Parts: sequence; C-alpha cells; structure tokens
Amino acid sequence: VTVLAVWALAVAAGCGPLRPPATDATAAKRNVILLVGDGLGATALTMARNYHLGAAGRLEIDRLPVTGSCTTWAVEEDDPTRPDYVTDSSSSATAMATGRKTSNRRVSTEPGTDAPLATILEQARRAGYRTGLVSTAHLADATPAAFAAHVNYRWCFDPAMMAACPTFAKMSGGPGSIVEQMIDVRPDVLLGGGAASFAQRIPAGTHAGHTVLDAAAEAGYRVVTTAAELAVVEAGSPVLGLFAADNFTPAWEGEAASFPPGRPQRCRAAQIPEAQPGLVPMLEAALRLLDAEAGPGFFLMAEAAMIDKQAHAADACGQIGETIELDRAVAVARRFAELHPGTLLIVVGDHDHAPVIVDTRYAVVAPGVTTTLETVEGASMTIGYATSTFTYKQQHSGAPVPVFSLGPDAEALDGLVDHTDIYRVMARRLGVGPAGRAAGDGPP
Amino acid sequence: VTVLAVWALAVAAGCGPLRPPATDATAAKRNVILLVGDGLGATALTMARNYHLGAAGRLEIDRLPVTGSCTTWAVEEDDPTRPDYVTDSSSSATAMATGRKTSNRRVSTEPGTDAPLATILEQARRAGYRTGLVSTAHLADATPAAFAAHVNYRWCFDPAMMAACPTFAKMSGGPGSIVEQMIDVRPDVLLGGGAASFAQRIPAGTHAGHTVLDAAAEAGYRVVTTAAELAVVEAGSPVLGLFAADNFTPAWEGEAASFPPGRPQRCRAAQIPEAQPGLVPMLEAALRLLDAEAGPGFFLMAEAAMIDKQAHAADACGQIGETIELDRAVAVARRFAELHPGTLLIVVGDHDHAPVIVDTRYAVVAPGVTTTLETVEGASMTIGYATSTFTYKQQHSGAPVPVFSLGPDAEALDGLVDHTDIYRVMARRLGVGPAGRAAGDGPP
Repeated sequence: VTVLAVWALAVAAGCGPLRPPATDATAAKRNVILLVGDGLGATALTMARNYHLGAAGRLEIDRLPVTGSCTTWAVEEDDPTRPDYVTDSSSSATAMATGRKTSNRRVSTEPGTDAPLATILEQARRAGYRTGLVSTAHLADATPAAFAAHVNYRWCFDPAMMAACPTFAKMSGGPGSIVEQMIDVRPDVLLGGGAASFAQRIPAGTHAGHTVLDAAAEAGYRVVTTAAELAVVEAGSPVLGLFAADNFTPAWEGEAASFPPGRPQRCRAAQIPEAQPGLVPMLEAALRLLDAEAGPGFFLMAEAAMIDKQAHAADACGQIGETIELDRAVAVARRFAELHPGTLLIVVGDHDHAPVIVDTRYAVVAPGVTTTLETVEGASMTIGYATSTFTYKQQHSGAPVPVFSLGPDAEALDGLVDHTDIYRVMARRLGVGPAGRAAGDGPP
Repeated sequence: VTVLAVWALAVAAGCGPLRPPATDATAAKRNVILLVGDGLGATALTMARNYHLGAAGRLEIDRLPVTGSCTTWAVEEDDPTRPDYVTDSSSSATAMATGRKTSNRRVSTEPGTDAPLATILEQARRAGYRTGLVSTAHLADATPAAFAAHVNYRWCFDPAMMAACPTFAKMSGGPGSIVEQMIDVRPDVLLGGGAASFAQRIPAGTHAGHTVLDAAAEAGYRVVTTAAELAVVEAGSPVLGLFAADNFTPAWEGEAASFPPGRPQRCRAAQIPEAQPGLVPMLEAALRLLDAEAGPGFFLMAEAAMIDKQAHAADACGQIGETIELDRAVAVARRFAELHPGTLLIVVGDHDHAPVIVDTRYAVVAPGVTTTLETVEGASMTIGYATSTFTYKQQHSGAPVPVFSLGPDAEALDGLVDHTDIYRVMARRLGVGPAGRAAGDGPP
C-alpha cells in the first residue's frame, strides 16, 4: 500500500470534496497526532456505535482508512522476559511513548532498574518539533505522564504524593513528581485536569517553596483555566490549560450497572462546569497553537481518558459519551490531516476493558453487574461488567485493541501490531529515536 | 490495494520461497475457501496465541495479509428492522451464506415469513462450481446447515427432531429436516459429525421408510466413516464423511473454569477416537476432491466448531486446542491459495463469546467462573467466563469479530465490514447471486 493509495482511500472514504493541495511549506511539515482512547476496546467502540448510530452505523473512527489490531501486554517487574497479559495504562502508554515494554504501574522507566526510557515527545522536542499533551483526565494521569515524565510508580502525581517513589522526590535529589517533571520537559501545549496538583509546593531544588504553577510561569507558560480563555489564547509561548481540580466531568451520565439490574435507560447529558472545555475544543486549540509557527512540525498526544474511568465504575453511559467525544475529535484531526498531508494520524486504545455486550435473553443469569440501554434504533443493548464483584472496581482485560490510522506511514499499522510498533512508526515519521538518532535522542 | 499487491504481500509475509506460477488452466479457476471459527473472537484468538506461542507470537491467522473487523448482529423476528445485538451461529451463518440478516435460531429463512434465502453454495452449484462443507460439529449444526438448508429453527437436525418446525417436515409436504435438505442440495463434499441423524428414517416422500444415509447413497454419495478411508477416497462422485455420532471430540482438554477457581493448569491432548480425522485432514481431503475435476472452480466452507462449544462449557483448553487446529488448517488453505491464485481465502468468526482475559491480581474477586493456564512462556493467564452463573451455559457476546483474507477481492474485507459483506465478496468472486444472476440463483 503506497502513501498515495492510503491518501486516495482517505479521500474516497468520504471526507468530502478534494481539498486544494497544501502549500509547499505546509506539506514539508511532519506532524504526528496520536489520539488515545483510554480503555477503547472493540466492545467500547461497538457500545458507542450501537447506542448512538445503530448496529449498521459507522463512526468517524470506523472510517479511517488503515485499520489494525494492537496487542497490549506488559512485562513482569521481577522478570521482564515474562509477559503480564493484562496491562494498565501506564505500562501501555510507556510502550507507545518509548517503544519499550515495562511493568504495570511504571511510567517510562525500566523494570527493575528505574532507568528512564526516552519518550517520543522528548525526542521530537530535541529535534525541534513542537509538542503537546491533551487529556480529559488529570495531566499527571498515566497516559499523558508517560510522554513527559519518568517515575517508578504512576500515582506520584505531585510533591505531596511521593511516598511510593522516594528516590524520585526532589528532597532526595530526584527529578520530582510527574507534574514537576512535565513542566521541566516543557511541552508547548499542556491541556487537561489536575489543577490541585499544580497548586502543590515544591519542597526542594531550584523552585523550593514555590508551587508547581509558579514554576510553570517561570518556565514561560501562560496559564489558562477556562474554555473561554482557551478559545482565544494565542501562539507564542507555551500554554498550560488546567480546567479541573482532578479529572474532567464526563459528558454523559446514567445509572451504573448493578445486580440485580435497574430499569432500561437512555443516557443523559451531564451538567458540565462552564470552565471545562470538551476534548474537541482542546484538540482544536492544540492544533492551532502547535501549527502556528514555522518549524519541522509537531507531536501531539490527546487522550479521551474517561472511557476507562467510567468502565472501572461500570458506567456504560459515561463510557459511550466519552467515546462519542473522541469520535468528534477524530473528525477534527482528520480534517487537519487532510489539509496538512505531512500529518500521520493514529487512533488507538491503550487496553481492552471489562464491558461485554451480553445476550439480553440470558442477562438475568449474568453473575456480574449489568445495565440495559435503549439505543437510537429502539432496541435494547445489555452491558455486563464481571471482572470484579464490586461495581466501582471493574478491571482491564487482555484482548488486543483496534488501531486506526491515516496519512504517511499509516500502512505500517495494518494487521496485528503492538503498542511498541506505534512508537516506531511515529519515530520514523519524525526521524527521531533509534531510527534517527542524529536528530536528537532523550535519556538514557 | 491491488490484487497483485495483496499477492506480493502474501509472499513477503513468509509463505516460503516463491512457487512456480500455476498453469493457465489452474489460474482460470475461481475458488472460495471460507474458514469459520465458531466463536472466534479477538479474545479466543489471543488466548491461543498467548498459550501456545506467547504474547509476542504470531499465528498463521495473524499473518494473513488483509485484516478487518466484522459486525455480527442479528435482527428481531417480529420486527426485522430492529437489531438483536448478540447473534447466534445460525443467524450469523445465514448472513455469510445469503447476504441477508435473519433472527436468531433461523437457518437461511426470512424472519416472519419462513421464505428460503438463496445461499452462496446453492448459487455456486447452479453455476457449475463444485461445493463442499466441512465441520468438526454435527453436519446439521448451524454453520454448515445455513449453506445447504432452509428451516425456521436450527435444531431441526433430522426427521426425529421436527417438533419445532412442523411445516418443514416431509409429513407436511415440506422439504424435510436439515440433513434431508443437505442431501437434496447435494454438495460434492460433506465431512463432519452427526452420523446418528443420518441413521434416522425419512417418514414420507420419495424416500419414505429409508434412512437419510440410504437417500444419500441413492443420490450417488459414497460414505466414509474413518480417517483412514477419508485419506484414500478418490474423486468421482460426491463424498459423505461421517466421523462421529454427534460433534467431534475436541483435540485438547483441561479443567473447566470454576468458582472458586481450581489450580493453575496446562492443557492436555484429549483421547481422540481413531476414526475421527482432524480438521486439517478433512480440509486436505476436501481441497483434493474439489480441485480434482475440470470446471469453473469450487466453494468450500470449513468450520472449527468446538471453539464455540467449549466456550459455552467454560473450557479454555478445549477452545485453545480447536483454535490451534483452525490455525493449522489456515496454513493448509494458504498453501493451496498460493498454488492456485484464483483462490479467495477468508477466515472469520461468526460471533464473539464469553471468555475474558482478566487481570490475575484481581481474579479472586471476579464473580464468574475462572481458570488460570500456565502458558508456553511460563506466565499465568487467567480466563474469566461471566455471561452466565452456570458453568456449562456461557453465552455469546456482541463485539465484532476479526476477519482475515488473502487472494483476489480480499481487499474488500479490509476495515469494518459485516457478515453480509462476506457473502457479497464471495458472490462477486464466483460471479453468482445478485451481482451475477445470469450464472444462476437459488430460491426465492
């Protein structure tokens, strides 16, 4: 499959009339947009399709021209030659960010040794690319963290949460918590939740006594805290957008699955804080800011985080709402890629999750929690969660996740691939990492 | 993606040294090999990969050049405009065999009306193609049945089982049970289980008082009942191979999943009756018999049926053993396709199923039944089944299934497709059905 064929397929697959060719300057830019659906397995995607469009409907995600399947396994901390068949988000994000497998709970560090693993964002930045991270979760949550921090334990978000990673604390001469490291790496765009962590004081080092937010301002970041501010912020210096104290409020809500099940339900739009932008406005702002200046291009990771968090809570409506948000973001990213043909767009889940679409005739005997949704086509869809007896503690599962892509090098993500291949394809596109060390490489 | 590109990819992907080009006569033949893994979802495939090859291993199935994802939904009997999000094997086999959605339990008949739906096997046969059905289940089981019978209820296997489909019985002037109809359709090759049904007496019509086996002999079938006979049977007249009274004995066995779980286990080879051939010898015999004579080519459906049946029984080892059998059959089919470039090979599941690869750290709180397997790489893989509280009644699920293909027209099965698309691609390849009516079409 040639690049041209993929592109022709993209146009043929319904992205509207042929756009005028990009200018030479634009075409020369190399961009990577990685959209991660946290917990976006085939079932999560099918739940959204069935509920919102019907079983025969097609999401924007479904229409991307190159489709593959991606293995997600982690490795054991004590013996990294052995697999852990079910990954968490920090291990799988590490695989995508660094091309290396690690053990669960680790953030871009090596099992056993704590050695940092160079990330695509760090490598891209050193090679002159602009970089950005966007999430609907806390910015220190596993997926964004793995692109701009290195720590042995994923919950070491901020200076007050360092008990499980003492050697990384600034007090021990370490690089600090995830939010401290993230500011030091200094991506051009950081948009998400986690304001409470950025308000923590740094206990030692250059910024001792200052908050992480102070340190960000000293590093040149302009801080925005509302959707309205985000919409008008201009390019120039780095932008830190903090729109929630912790994670975002999911767009949709409903009754959690239960045993015995509740009545069949339709999902409701949630009450969203006015300051909180959706994933789409965040993505649009990030693309605008990253593309505004001359240079070789950009690397952007944007995450729909609440698919996973609402799956943990057995909340089918929350999952579906966030999947639809991701789908709208895919449409935005695709339009950008069509106007900027040097752009590689990848959409992928980081792991499969608990929900199973079960047979309504047998749902009464399902031993886990279930909920039945009335879909757009007037049919009943029953979702079971049975990886835990506790409704609010459902767990990941070990099936591969779908991967969708468009643009130059996308064909390398056809068929069965692994999260580490996603790193390799992105690194090749940007000419960084092992395949392009001359352009700059991170630690170690 | 051109046919040539797919072919080049097939060669590049590791099918050994380039074979000499086929003769013109062979190249002119159009063959379709449809390999169905009953219940072969992404999890079933991953269980087999992890257990047998390791997480980073690649099955023969994984190496097929064109990969897609296939939706599997059925429709409601009372309102066929409404979906049933979880299909059974008869509805999904009907979709593949006829290109039409039907309700669960139906075999190639229309919801509401009982009208027969023309099948690809019937259409191919009328157009002069040779045809065959192979299964490791009873030959009247849903998947083979949907290609060569039309009935309102899938369990109407034989003359003694017609209570739920009285209008179809020969006594009512109907076409008879599934095995009676199958002999009347007269595929060139029928290999599988179900000898007990073929021993039933036909109560009315031309063959009144004779057994179904008698009727088969009168229709010209040679009957073989052992693997040894199958290995030497020669082409000429149709072959009916009956190697088990009902379903085959699965190749592997182990302890069923349970609550509380048993000890971690390795799977064992089962005691297989000497007369029972594996899926591979059946496929090899079918390809030999179907390809032996001049003509436009053949249509062959071969099913690894026990992936589903052992999933219903929460038997992970049984599932994995049958998946490995299917994988070996894929290697055989692929080699055939490489030597006969007019061959379209499709490998697909008919529906997803209950098993979930769960996190071993949390397996103790999984509310369903679980089992832990010690895999080839010395790691533990825990499988949970939680679509029913009863171990032996696990149910299907509604995720799409993977679809893999190779050969001319395979590229049409890239991306997200539906089981009805598989019919359309096969029909196009053979030039039959709505796209090629001149070549002959079945009822109605």
